[in-house]
Amino acid sequence: MSQSPSPRELANAVRFLAMDAVQQANSGHPGAPMGMADFAQVVWCDFMKHNPTNPAWWDRDRLVLSGGHASMLLYAMLHLSGYDLSLDDIKNFRQLHSRTPGHPEYGLTPGVETTTGPLGQGICNAVGFALAEKILAATYNRPGHPVVDHNTYCFLGDGDLMEGISHEACSLAGTLKLGKLIALWDDNRISIEGNVDEWFADDTAKRFEAYGWHVVACVDGHDAEAVRQAVAAAKAETERPSIICCRTEIGHGAPTVCGSERCHGSPLGAEEIEKARENLGWPHEPFHVPDALYAGWDLREKGAQTEASWDQAWAAYAKEFPELAEEFARRMRGELPANWEEESGKFIAGVRDAAEDKATRKASQAALNGYGPLLPELLGGSADLAGSNGTLWSGSKHITPNDAAGNNMRYGVREFAMGAIMNALTLHGGFIPFGGTFLVFSDYMRNAMRLAALMELRTIYVLTHDSIGVGEDGPTHQPVEHVSSLRIMPNMDVWRPCDTVETAVAWKCAIESEKTPSSLVLSRQGLPFMQRNAEQVENIVKGGYILRDAEDGNPEAIIIATGSEVSLAMSAADALARKGRSVRVVSMPCADRFDQQDDAYKLQVLPAEVEARVAVEAGSTGLWFKYVGGKGTVIGMDRYGESAPGKTLFEFFGFTVDNVVEAVESVLGE
Amino acid sequence: MSQSPSPRELANAVRFLAMDAVQQANSGHPGAPMGMADFAQVVWCDFMKHNPTNPAWWDRDRLVLSGGHASMLLYAMLHLSGYDLSLDDIKNFRQLHSRTPGHPEYGLTPGVETTTGPLGQGICNAVGFALAEKILAATYNRPGHPVVDHNTYCFLGDGDLMEGISHEACSLAGTLKLGKLIALWDDNRISIEGNVDEWFADDTAKRFEAYGWHVVACVDGHDAEAVRQAVAAAKAETERPSIICCRTEIGHGAPTVCGSERCHGSPLGAEEIEKARENLGWPHEPFHVPDALYAGWDLREKGAQTEASWDQAWAAYAKEFPELAEEFARRMRGELPANWEEESGKFIAGVRDAAEDKATRKASQAALNGYGPLLPELLGGSADLAGSNGTLWSGSKHITPNDAAGNNMRYGVREFAMGAIMNALTLHGGFIPFGGTFLVFSDYMRNAMRLAALMELRTIYVLTHDSIGVGEDGPTHQPVEHVSSLRIMPNMDVWRPCDTVETAVAWKCAIESEKTPSSLVLSRQGLPFMQRNAEQVENIVKGGYILRDAEDGNPEAIIIATGSEVSLAMSAADALARKGRSVRVVSMPCADRFDQQDDAYKLQVLPAEVEARVAVEAGSTGLWFKYVGGKGTVIGMDRYGESAPGKTLFEFFGFTVDNVVEAVESVLGE
Repeated sequence: MSQSPSPRELANAVRFLAMDAVQQANSGHPGAPMGMADFAQVVWCDFMKHNPTNPAWWDRDRLVLSGGHASMLLYAMLHLSGYDLSLDDIKNFRQLHSRTPGHPEYGLTPGVETTTGPLGQGICNAVGFALAEKILAATYNRPGHPVVDHNTYCFLGDGDLMEGISHEACSLAGTLKLGKLIALWDDNRISIEGNVDEWFADDTAKRFEAYGWHVVACVDGHDAEAVRQAVAAAKAETERPSIICCRTEIGHGAPTVCGSERCHGSPLGAEEIEKARENLGWPHEPFHVPDALYAGWDLREKGAQTEASWDQAWAAYAKEFPELAEEFARRMRGELPANWEEESGKFIAGVRDAAEDKATRKASQAALNGYGPLLPELLGGSADLAGSNGTLWSGSKHITPNDAAGNNMRYGVREFAMGAIMNALTLHGGFIPFGGTFLVFSDYMRNAMRLAALMELRTIYVLTHDSIGVGEDGPTHQPVEHVSSLRIMPNMDVWRPCDTVETAVAWKCAIESEKTPSSLVLSRQGLPFMQRNAEQVENIVKGGYILRDAEDGNPEAIIIATGSEVSLAMSAADALARKGRSVRVVSMPCADRFDQQDDAYKLQVLPAEVEARVAVEAGSTGLWFKYVGGKGTVIGMDRYGESAPGKTLFEFFGFTVDNVVEAVESVLGE
Repeated sequence: MSQSPSPRELANAVRFLAMDAVQQANSGHPGAPMGMADFAQVVWCDFMKHNPTNPAWWDRDRLVLSGGHASMLLYAMLHLSGYDLSLDDIKNFRQLHSRTPGHPEYGLTPGVETTTGPLGQGICNAVGFALAEKILAATYNRPGHPVVDHNTYCFLGDGDLMEGISHEACSLAGTLKLGKLIALWDDNRISIEGNVDEWFADDTAKRFEAYGWHVVACVDGHDAEAVRQAVAAAKAETERPSIICCRTEIGHGAPTVCGSERCHGSPLGAEEIEKARENLGWPHEPFHVPDALYAGWDLREKGAQTEASWDQAWAAYAKEFPELAEEFARRMRGELPANWEEESGKFIAGVRDAAEDKATRKASQAALNGYGPLLPELLGGSADLAGSNGTLWSGSKHITPNDAAGNNMRYGVREFAMGAIMNALTLHGGFIPFGGTFLVFSDYMRNAMRLAALMELRTIYVLTHDSIGVGEDGPTHQPVEHVSSLRIMPNMDVWRPCDTVETAVAWKCAIESEKTPSSLVLSRQGLPFMQRNAEQVENIVKGGYILRDAEDGNPEAIIIATGSEVSLAMSAADALARKGRSVRVVSMPCADRFDQQDDAYKLQVLPAEVEARVAVEAGSTGLWFKYVGGKGTVIGMDRYGESAPGKTLFEFFGFTVDNVVEAVESVLGE
């Protein structure tokens, strides 16, 4: 080995760490890291602006490894370049509670920008990172002070390009002219079932030209110099996003299985690795990397210097624009403004005083008008349903291709991309994103919502038209199972408020919920205001509370309801009272939060001795048996809706006072 | 009006029926039908091969209205051309139980080929229809006997083109050379939030060229002659799918709101409609169409003649190839072969006798090897995970761009397209499609599965890697909430079998389930065989049954389990027996089916008096409270998994004999 290692030698260190770690774990994906190692090394060492000793530096370049199964590529580079990821971490690849899980997981490993593995979402995250940079730059930079100025890199594969979300994301990136986004396509023509020719024959270069991208076609992904020239060209292009088509060989260096799907998803085996050692001239023991290669990879000093220069630039900016700097820093730290608690409290008090009947989607829009002025970090948007979702408020300003200094995204009819971009906006820092669509179309972005919950991100989904109340648009547009199916997604708060006050509180909780995404499930149709005392208002944050009680506080029966069915429950309780029955009504806008309360509170709201319980919700019944117990019953719907006016449907499907009264009497044994 | 109406006059009949129906319903979408009326009329009257008096004719051309909100376009054309859809039906637009719901719904309205509304899935259905035609033609046609020979037309809009699934579907259509697919793009540059320029700037013609399509660019969608030439060119091109880019004006004919999103989703209002009458020279009352126009639209005679010619061709084919004709006809009727019941029963008996320990994904593959030879209509495939999903069997033959006479689709990494294509294969007739992916990625195709359930289609999802048993790939690949979230989807049978026999029975049920799609949820890891008597085997189809009982049939406690947790429940029951406890184990492979049993059976399996119940499933707990009641408990997981070997994870998350024993003892009050 020469004194100053060649790019090829540097890349081989990645290759062998990947082979060795997968072999030791007896599980994993060696082929992709081996195929990408050459171009990855060039990007990581020669182009990326980052500091291994401070992975949280705000102005670092971001790298997204869209094909998360190639995790060992990223782990190897983090380790070799001086991030806090030891050789023992590498040896612990894919073991319980290691920092090197099978797919990169945000929050576990320093330098991992986002959790990837579900294909297509990584490239969409990269679009989101680039968008975040462009918005913040447009908002905070001042002439001579480009304090926000970084690139986003993405490595993606054929699988990512086949996924529909890649279309949504890349079409939007081209439209919005995200010129600082640089994608490198690992064009190896292999997916799990083999050579892709018979199921993926796109002219990808042409496809990206159609999106308005800058395409660098036909680059030899194993030729460091060719890659260097391509990346330089991509950096020089600042108007259009760039894609570099890197022709590579999967498993490059493994003599027998290279270029084939056989090296994709399982260890190469000791024999093949031995042959690869010979083939690549790598005489070292497993997991051994020579010092010269460590030295060649080490980016700590360079990174620290780069960050130090930025620190100076930041100091100059902060001196000249102290208020801007303070706001930007607060946003990047993820802190709410100092006046938040007081002002949001005032807003809720005002909503309570106003006592308005209103569709909760309108109440949600009103909440945005209340909270929006306090929160420049709120970044709204909708998948082409802004008017219906109520996501535009008085301070909304559209982000356009030529002016990114706004706070509203028109995502187009691209729900999944919206979800994955919202994740990246949060991960980048500086934003609390919210995005709207019809609840039924949360299906389209479901896995992005799951990744938000898994990554513990503060994202907010405005999901309107929440039941058969949708009316005439019919069953394709009427959610039935959706509220429940979001409730069972771990770490997802699902709010289904019943009126203006619960909606305002739900928004406040969502905004304050640093580690849990929130789904706000809102009605299309108008809903009546509910009177509450101060204690009841305070209890909303607990997710479930007594909205109406028996006169003596000792009810015979309990009706539990959410959203549009709360007023129905109240009317039924009134009707039962007129018949001499004492019934409690529990409003449960957020079952997830109710479940987290202590037993004392839960038993206060739902006393064990009151077994006559009825839950009412215009959706799936299944989950409600948890709350009504073996003696209770549920009024809901376990079938699809119909096309008809909403009121007709509520009646047709049995959401009537008479029906609820009858159900209560029935569980009371009458 | 002239004696022989002009195309423009014919199209205006559609425009006014759309305006009038939306106005009368006070709800709906007039703009799209008005914009598409001209090109739609040309396709419907001059090109499409169909017979209004027999909408089920096998060799008809299919039309998919991808933007289902334009439903009045389709209803108007069906009505005008002589389908069994009356003017009263039109007047009943969007009313309860009408045949003209807000979005077209398969099964409600003669001539509606598929349910559309959720954007993007329509164009993907069209790809599926064209694929079905190509496969059947390649399989059954013989020289001089093209009995399968029809086109698929699709009308799609900007919204469809923004959705990711349009990429998946159209990329695949180009790769597979679906030359008989003809899409007409309603290029009006308007989506709900307005002019799309700032959020959708694709060069769509170029994009489709990149997919290998034949593109007819820049057609005036209001010029019947231009459209006619374009469609003729598309029909002439039989190698590549065609897209005709029809430049149109949304709400064409409405003088004030045309060309704007204001005419998209609400009635035009009486005044605007009055002005449109003047503007278009339409002096008629609402809902009145002059006889001359009805005559111009009437396709009954032409259609009947066309079908009659085909009947002759079919008779000649059936005479020459009686066996082929019989098989084809049986498939198109959706009937299983005469020997199905006997042979499938034999297969299950053989599986029982073999008594093998096996991962249920392997058991599923074995079932395919058993049933596949009986069923030429089985059309398998996977979203690039065939090896892992076990979807290839001994008789699998790949469908390739140049040879469609196969029975296995390599969908590529395109889960959502796979789901929507499977729907179309079923709708076309002739197929029972099954498609595989990892259970966690059912998220990606969830809304297509929902549409299968809504349309009551026999589609089968092979969803492997069903829990933390996935192991090292980690939480992005480990389902937690998925089994439950599929269970609450109405009309979806979710099977989670515990061994080879339950897997074989689940497959049999799925194949026989004519009106309900089935999700087969299968383990990655090996599972032990369970001994059963004949009655137990028979009871599997009931979805839940007693697998192990207390010696005297009077258990103190019941453990309910599914899939990989059944053997755990059995071991726990054994351990409890050694401690003198009498415990029943209920295996519940399909809770949906168990719920459909009569009360007598349900109470026999889960007697009301046995309140000490424990459910065990490596997934969300919420739904199980319905079965364990207020006194029971659930061992499951309501958090995300970890990256580690599967066995380690089962232990870490508490799926151990000790834990189940403890839980049973606890509910027994010990």
